[in-house]
Amino acid sequence: MVSPPKILVCLDTDAQPSVFDGVVAVDAGIDHLFRHGGVTPDAIRNLVYGALFTRGTADLRSTAIFIGGSDVAAGEALLAKARECFFGAMRISLMIDSNGANTTAAAAVLCAGKHAALRGVTATVLGATGSVGRRVVRLLAREGAIVRVSSRQLARAQGVCNEVAILLPSAQLTAWETRSADAVSQAITGATVVINAGAPAVELLSEPQRREAKSLRVAIDLNAVPPVGIGGIEPQDKATERDGQMLYGAIGVGGLKMKLHKAAIRRLFESNDAVLDAEEIFALGGTW
Amino acid sequence: MVSPPKILVCLDTDAQPSVFDGVVAVDAGIDHLFRHGGVTPDAIRNLVYGALFTRGTADLRSTAIFIGGSDVAAGEALLAKARECFFGAMRISLMIDSNGANTTAAAAVLCAGKHAALRGVTATVLGATGSVGRRVVRLLAREGAIVRVSSRQLARAQGVCNEVAILLPSAQLTAWETRSADAVSQAITGATVVINAGAPAVELLSEPQRREAKSLRVAIDLNAVPPVGIGGIEPQDKATERDGQMLYGAIGVGGLKMKLHKAAIRRLFESNDAVLDAEEIFALGGTW
Amino acid sequence: MVSPPKILVCLDTDAQPSVFDGVVAVDAGIDHLFRHGGVTPDAIRNLVYGALFTRGTADLRSTAIFIGGSDVAAGEALLAKARECFFGAMRISLMIDSNGANTTAAAAVLCAGKHAALRGVTATVLGATGSVGRRVVRLLAREGAIVRVSSRQLARAQGVCNEVAILLPSAQLTAWETRSADAVSQAITGATVVINAGAPAVELLSEPQRREAKSLRVAIDLNAVPPVGIGGIEPQDKATERDGQMLYGAIGVGGLKMKLHKAAIRRLFESNDAVLDAEEIFALGGTW
Repeated sequence: MVSPPKILVCLDTDAQPSVFDGVVAVDAGIDHLFRHGGVTPDAIRNLVYGALFTRGTADLRSTAIFIGGSDVAAGEALLAKARECFFGAMRISLMIDSNGANTTAAAAVLCAGKHAALRGVTATVLGATGSVGRRVVRLLAREGAIVRVSSRQLARAQGVCNEVAILLPSAQLTAWETRSADAVSQAITGATVVINAGAPAVELLSEPQRREAKSLRVAIDLNAVPPVGIGGIEPQDKATERDGQMLYGAIGVGGLKMKLHKAAIRRLFESNDAVLDAEEIFALGGTW
Repeated sequence: MVSPPKILVCLDTDAQPSVFDGVVAVDAGIDHLFRHGGVTPDAIRNLVYGALFTRGTADLRSTAIFIGGSDVAAGEALLAKARECFFGAMRISLMIDSNGANTTAAAAVLCAGKHAALRGVTATVLGATGSVGRRVVRLLAREGAIVRVSSRQLARAQGVCNEVAILLPSAQLTAWETRSADAVSQAITGATVVINAGAPAVELLSEPQRREAKSLRVAIDLNAVPPVGIGGIEPQDKATERDGQMLYGAIGVGGLKMKLHKAAIRRLFESNDAVLDAEEIFALGGTW
Repeated sequence: MVSPPKILVCLDTDAQPSVFDGVVAVDAGIDHLFRHGGVTPDAIRNLVYGALFTRGTADLRSTAIFIGGSDVAAGEALLAKARECFFGAMRISLMIDSNGANTTAAAAVLCAGKHAALRGVTATVLGATGSVGRRVVRLLAREGAIVRVSSRQLARAQGVCNEVAILLPSAQLTAWETRSADAVSQAITGATVVINAGAPAVELLSEPQRREAKSLRVAIDLNAVPPVGIGGIEPQDKATERDGQMLYGAIGVGGLKMKLHKAAIRRLFESNDAVLDAEEIFALGGTW
């Protein structure tokens, strides 16, 4: 039996729908893209119903929805609304990757996991309160790491800890205020993994500090804009060994991020009930 | 000689172009969809000229325009503007199905016609003043039925009669005010066909009333949202015989509606001069 | 090695993206169109980065950007912003054809060149200060013609001369004020080529004037809306010989314009570094 053409409905919260997400979808093999910009929650019902009520249930797996845009909270609101439209077998697969946060965080934690069993290991997340950082914390905690959640503001770090603890009551999380270089050094002392998810063009950990942290096995910097966020890591570094540490830069992680993004798009069309958020996208890479 | 790719230009009066119409177009075999949202009459000339002046006249049949959106009057304004842009052989095929009103009405009347010759038969349309109801009245009248146009407000029912009488001077139409259950019972007394096109989630005809109407051979309810509009009809009913009547629910009619919609899209690309409104879409199903 | 699907990102400065440009792109063989309307310069960076950072450098030639819309200055602002996003090998091909000005001007000058060597020849451009006219002046000057830049306002004609002289210091340009029929006759006296790029539905040169201009070998009218801009030229004229002159009307030039437009789209995907403005599009036709 022949399946109908694969249609990906891209719902973007930005006025102009993402070219990035569109190109990845094409390269993942979709047949038709329906790209929508400036999508608000009140528009969701009609859009989702249009996807639900046009193809027979056996063919619902050939239509899927991707939610993107720079505003992660706005994307999450669309995701929640879309799920409300489903009933019984009347559902289609969904993926959210607003701001690229899910694929980036999943790729970073997968890179870390290549060099260190994450269960029971101490991992420090710098700049942990942004959309990528919060997902890195979630994924590390779910893998059983002891996670140090670091931010320039303790209250924000604690907020992320609280948020993740609700999802994962067994998570081992501590909030760290890292306003000074000394505080950052303390936050990585004894840690095996450090991942920087802070703002672009801000160095949070200097090269000497990183070298001095003798416990570090893996250092991953997700900032691609100079100056990089962790001193002595080049954006292109990809499992580059220096100073006894495995180093990854933003571009080095990017290859895996793209591979995950494409695999997730393909996964959408294997059934009509996938909901791919950070954890599910991470799991896709776990078998590689 | 090879035809160029089939391009369907979807002009939608809603801010977000319809996913429903897009999926149907893909499944009808178009190659490229150009989807436009928030289309207003002043934008039509440029859009239509772009379709007219890009391909040789022999290839104009490979470009067509679909007009959709929730506002039927707004769609009709676009259709009128689009037709004004044509001259001589410089024209392309057009279809309008704002609010799905044309395909839904055509499917409902085709279902009725499967079980009762419509010429000379009495047919009652409940909720006849909406976009679907008015088209059901038009199509029934054109088939030669004696149509009872029912509404909670007599003036609105009479307005629909007047409107249809202008198009079809020979139409046999009477306006019925149906504010009470008794008035509804009267409106279906002696009728062979009843079609409910009223607002969703409003019961206009109860199950006991329907059973007591001994003349009824066909009862069609176009409301899919509970409670259904005609008591004792399930949305999935499709030529289900109960109480000596053939019953159709909204989903039961929906299969034919989808088939008509796809056939109409395919018809667009068979010549460059089709204009598919309710009557032409109904005619497509007449040969099945 | 298989190339990925060809994606053309159409960035349009009008609210509704051009159907014209979309159909031509499809007919030039692209696989996927990403159509954006209402594009402003501040949106460019994200859109271009999305095209740059999704495919490996070897595959960047399979993604390209087309800039269109009715406002040429607005399109040029997008082009400038897009070029600023490139660095090193990280670039993709670009084309601009706002208002169809580049393809129209290139086609007109190519038509002229079929019948008269342009180097050293005197060519008069009527209505030279619009987006098409200015490009006709640029292309004629670059080919070595002695160009008379004509406008109803001398200051505007002189402005175009100045603008082109900056790009082409060796250009031979003179400004002509042509408010009266006599002034127009003077402006074409001794000229071998006349091209009208003036406003639609305005006759700038009457049929008797044209016939009396014994030096004229080629007369090209780019106005398709009656009355035509040069008397005695039919829109369909294409190298039609009358009165000892080769005549072209807007539709007669249109065939070459369309061929150039399609060739330019195809050219975009042959490398990742093309920037196709008027001159480059003109050069594409130079080999035919």
